[in-house]
Amino acid sequence: MEHRIARRAQDVGASLIRQMFVYAQADLRKNGIPQYVSLGVGVPSFALPEYTARELSRAVLEYRDKINTYVLGLGLPELNQAVAMKLKSDGINANPDREILITAGSAGGLSWAFQTLVDIGDEVILPSPAYSNHVDGVKIAGGIPVHVPLLEDHRYRLDVGAIQRAITEKTKAIVFSNPSNPTGAVFPEEDLRAVGGIARRHNLYVLEDNAYAFVTYDGIKHFSLVAVPEFRDNVLSFFTASKEDAMTGFRVGWAVTNPFLIEKMFAMQDQFIISPSSISEYGALFALTGPQDHVEYFRQELSRRRDLICSRLDRLQGVFSYQRPQGAYYVFPRFSQPILDSEVRLTGKAAERFKEIPERWRTKDTAVALALLYEAGVVTVPGISFGPEGENHIRLSFAGEERDINEAFDRIEGWLEGI
Amino acid sequence: MEHRIARRAQDVGASLIRQMFVYAQADLRKNGIPQYVSLGVGVPSFALPEYTARELSRAVLEYRDKINTYVLGLGLPELNQAVAMKLKSDGINANPDREILITAGSAGGLSWAFQTLVDIGDEVILPSPAYSNHVDGVKIAGGIPVHVPLLEDHRYRLDVGAIQRAITEKTKAIVFSNPSNPTGAVFPEEDLRAVGGIARRHNLYVLEDNAYAFVTYDGIKHFSLVAVPEFRDNVLSFFTASKEDAMTGFRVGWAVTNPFLIEKMFAMQDQFIISPSSISEYGALFALTGPQDHVEYFRQELSRRRDLICSRLDRLQGVFSYQRPQGAYYVFPRFSQPILDSEVRLTGKAAERFKEIPERWRTKDTAVALALLYEAGVVTVPGISFGPEGENHIRLSFAGEERDINEAFDRIEGWLEGI
Repeated sequence: MEHRIARRAQDVGASLIRQMFVYAQADLRKNGIPQYVSLGVGVPSFALPEYTARELSRAVLEYRDKINTYVLGLGLPELNQAVAMKLKSDGINANPDREILITAGSAGGLSWAFQTLVDIGDEVILPSPAYSNHVDGVKIAGGIPVHVPLLEDHRYRLDVGAIQRAITEKTKAIVFSNPSNPTGAVFPEEDLRAVGGIARRHNLYVLEDNAYAFVTYDGIKHFSLVAVPEFRDNVLSFFTASKEDAMTGFRVGWAVTNPFLIEKMFAMQDQFIISPSSISEYGALFALTGPQDHVEYFRQELSRRRDLICSRLDRLQGVFSYQRPQGAYYVFPRFSQPILDSEVRLTGKAAERFKEIPERWRTKDTAVALALLYEAGVVTVPGISFGPEGENHIRLSFAGEERDINEAFDRIEGWLEGI
Repeated sequence: MEHRIARRAQDVGASLIRQMFVYAQADLRKNGIPQYVSLGVGVPSFALPEYTARELSRAVLEYRDKINTYVLGLGLPELNQAVAMKLKSDGINANPDREILITAGSAGGLSWAFQTLVDIGDEVILPSPAYSNHVDGVKIAGGIPVHVPLLEDHRYRLDVGAIQRAITEKTKAIVFSNPSNPTGAVFPEEDLRAVGGIARRHNLYVLEDNAYAFVTYDGIKHFSLVAVPEFRDNVLSFFTASKEDAMTGFRVGWAVTNPFLIEKMFAMQDQFIISPSSISEYGALFALTGPQDHVEYFRQELSRRRDLICSRLDRLQGVFSYQRPQGAYYVFPRFSQPILDSEVRLTGKAAERFKEIPERWRTKDTAVALALLYEAGVVTVPGISFGPEGENHIRLSFAGEERDINEAFDRIEGWLEGI
């Protein structure tokens, strides 16, 4: 049977972030590599914090008639309260009953926002390289992604002038992650305020994906436009418990914006998935209301891993150039010209997989990423999957343990010697 | 600021199922009703089964470095295996690695299917009254819901001839729940096979929402078209752990279809929410692999509650006529003509809420449901929210405890005496 899928589904595949992992799982053992090492999907190596685990474990037993049913409002009321308190300590005032929606991760929140705001043919500006789910989220909603380059040579800062110039009658929104996935940039307050001003003047929406808000280095502070009351009409801000509380799998985050849009996104979430997982919401509640020492520990640990990966990259100056990350746990090095000029010959399964990848992603960086995977057993993510500006780059996550980062780079170095 | 939301979001509100609950929570105490009683949202009163709670509680503590991270494949591999075993015992063969996708509830699975299959302008046939999330899911994807009446006088059977006649060049799919929400019908195998045949001949998709598969009464057996190999290209079947394992809040279900569509829906789920909740997937795994006595207990208990609600309805023959449910935990009575002819005068908050409800839903049944809510403190769901065929009906859930069903009907009887 010839399948008759919708246009939006023809173009959207699982992200390469996910796909590289799938390949690693499916193919490597057969390819003679018993154990791969991952700089791919950004999954911190941290366990669920002890207090959270203990409380959740207890609640599952003690309240097994409460924790199992639908969460019917904007979230568990106690969780919305806890989120409001946390936001307040970060300088953000939000009414827990009207301005905060608990979502299925920040990814879920952004999806409901795209579905709520983006009409067929609307343009959405993406400072790029951009997180691939944002690009595809816009496309699924029928919008047109407009990539505006970040200033790579200035630590991937926002190009406010270029954003202004990209606005047309069809522009509906500006979307970015901050700290930035995949670049590791943290956008300065003045640039963000300038973008907020543009949005107000042109009656646009700014969608801030703050999934990595707590992961900043060198004393740099994360700033969110949703903290500024005069921007509340135009700004939708998305956060998550995933990273800060080591619960990426729980899929709990929160959207913060004005009551009108909260209500609309609530309806969208209800239609798509009814609600986030109740048990996950309890997990987030315990994480937010328990001791917070793990947060500083995670930050320091990740900071050390950043230093390590940068030092390993420094040893490969003929291969990569890179901007030192200020936040998140990704570095986005560019391949040097000699590497880009060299021929990458993929064989066997790697060549097969290359052909399976959508055509627009069959670039040199994808070829190198596949070679690294199938020949060195190192999972990375091709830069092209973050938009055209990502071409010739590769995303490396340093969320894993130091020994994995070292092992990955030992393998990369060995592989480079081989070619 | 004048908000610029997308057309799809203008039309889609939270379902009335959800909204009636929101009103109850927000307004009733202020309206002088200290405690409402619910025949609204279908939430069984059962606690998480003891074995599942114990194992999950233990896993959260013991494996806190495993249960907290993204589920990256089609599901936890052990869960896909367990689902395959369970399906097999119901006569359905499905390859756990290629034909089963773990989804955020059956609702999530259906959403990914709508997004994957339904293009702008595609028609989707909904035997109606139909579950409101199906109607809105089609609309969100840009499709046109085509309501084909169920045969109310024949216990809401499928009208196969009418479905056949409703097919046009633009028809893409046929969607229903079986057992049926809101009617409680269980569709006979011969009718389902006839619909499957129509789908094959016209190259359409059948989307079966089997969320209530295990809840059938009077020895009637649930049948799914996905059990029939020759229909595997055209049938997508959605199940959930929500009802059978008393974990409505966990949001875990599974889609069963051919590998091509599984892959497409997997990509869609990845884009929208990354994955279902990991901790919820572990919960479902323990529920599926542990003792199963609770399932028969739930069924018998619900059967008793059905008998009770039917006997209470029988006492109100001048008010309601109804078809005895064969499955699920809803009954969908029609108001009698005298009730429909009588004037329902809403006052205060009830009148305000009526005006807030989208215009197409401002029908007599909605007015009665609001009167029941604000004057008697009984939550129900207006029939109109299940499509035009639902008008003049009301959905009553009997998933709650017997004392609640009795209390609700005592209140309804008292209210009727008052008017």
